[in-house]
Amino acid sequence: MTYCVALRLDRGIVFASDTRTSASVDNIAVFSKMHIWERKGDRVIVLLSAGNLAMTQSVVSLLNEGVDHGGDDERPSLLTVDTMFQAARLIGETIREVRRIDREAIEQNPSLFSASFILGGQIAEDTPRLFQIYQEGNFIEATKDTPYFQIGEHKYGKPIIDRVAKPDMRMGTAAKLLLVSFDSTLRSNLSVGMPIDLLIYRKDTLQVGEQRRLEAEDPYFRMLSKAWADALRDAFSRLEEYQTEEEPSWMKPRGLTERERERMD
Amino acid sequence: MTYCVALRLDRGIVFASDTRTSASVDNIAVFSKMHIWERKGDRVIVLLSAGNLAMTQSVVSLLNEGVDHGGDDERPSLLTVDTMFQAARLIGETIREVRRIDREAIEQNPSLFSASFILGGQIAEDTPRLFQIYQEGNFIEATKDTPYFQIGEHKYGKPIIDRVAKPDMRMGTAAKLLLVSFDSTLRSNLSVGMPIDLLIYRKDTLQVGEQRRLEAEDPYFRMLSKAWADALRDAFSRLEEYQTEEEPSWMKPRGLTERERERMD
Repeated sequence: MTYCVALRLDRGIVFASDTRTSASVDNIAVFSKMHIWERKGDRVIVLLSAGNLAMTQSVVSLLNEGVDHGGDDERPSLLTVDTMFQAARLIGETIREVRRIDREAIEQNPSLFSASFILGGQIAEDTPRLFQIYQEGNFIEATKDTPYFQIGEHKYGKPIIDRVAKPDMRMGTAAKLLLVSFDSTLRSNLSVGMPIDLLIYRKDTLQVGEQRRLEAEDPYFRMLSKAWADALRDAFSRLEEYQTEEEPSWMKPRGLTERERERMD
Repeated sequence: MTYCVALRLDRGIVFASDTRTSASVDNIAVFSKMHIWERKGDRVIVLLSAGNLAMTQSVVSLLNEGVDHGGDDERPSLLTVDTMFQAARLIGETIREVRRIDREAIEQNPSLFSASFILGGQIAEDTPRLFQIYQEGNFIEATKDTPYFQIGEHKYGKPIIDRVAKPDMRMGTAAKLLLVSFDSTLRSNLSVGMPIDLLIYRKDTLQVGEQRRLEAEDPYFRMLSKAWADALRDAFSRLEEYQTEEEPSWMKPRGLTERERERMD
């Protein structure tokens, strides 16, 4: 399983992806799911991938072959397309090409050939843009209302992003948010694993700014994970308790938190 | 979709289930997914159901017919079985009976006939016990390590239970926890809907103690939902920010929270 997430902000885009690939639970390997194409001063294109590794690697290999061939008007490459929208279309086409090659095998076992992608980046003066690309090759773009995309094991880490994400966040806050979202996912699903690849792209820099791999023993991530666990338990204990019917009423004046009641006990 | 959850504690069991049933998004109805068999002073048996409504209703109808026929040694009913383990076996058998009747249709469209159940309660001197029963009719029992079960749309609401649940919780705290877990699920999945059925069974009372339906406008649930949202945002903002590389180093002394930095800005 996989967890990848990207969040588009006023100041740029933050990407994060896990690195665990498993054919089964006793066959686990580390593969980067973050693929980057950069031409400084002109473009940064980041692709996160989830799903069948044979399929996603084929897509990335074909995209790289396109770049190696230089690309032309008839067959553009990721380094020659004019806009991120064109880049999304190119990747969609590439996915369809891979699926055509594997068509017979896909018909026999559709679930084996699942794949999905998050594409983000900036080309020249265009604004930074973020897309989710489906295995059918079609895609959607992030908006102000939905400024982020997740692929893979996305549910555990979704509630906190829904609650906190804001377009005017600082990049450091957004990185913190994605790491907290990862923490919830890692706790609940063994098949999503450290290390985490993190990339912070700042608008109009047109170069990969900050890219880091956070290992399991990363001191910031460990601190964050512990502090968040403590903060959640603390916040929960401060919420007013559900008033049950059966305790004598003098035991449960309305409006007291769990903490206050414990002090009274 | 559905969300049902039950948590076994030293003091008893708390059950919660949503009530939304949808054939498609424009066909939404309210059905209770909480089924109760009670004989005061002898037993309380609670069954939560998720999945295909035709299937889960058939299972419950057959169980009720068994009760109406009185039950005997050859065909026990939920009011004659001696232990909760026997109750779990009886329900498993009943699921298999329904699936035998529908076998041909199930083979044509297996996904339509999904169903799963949470069973909890107490019979006589036996301790309160909690089971999850699969659509194949087999089942597992909750333990100290895993004192809760969820069925249906369980992922959004799982992290907070994993972090907070403890066997020595008060029943009011446990009810609060399940409602917070519901809140995360309701926010992230439209097809899980209010009202919520809540049942608090206290050990050795051998009667349904407190059973309530929380409607969308329930003042406690609304307060809880808002307080939890505020607390989460507040807790998040207090976590130390991820230190990005590109800001000048004097802007980001290590160890400051987002709040403290905002005060410095």
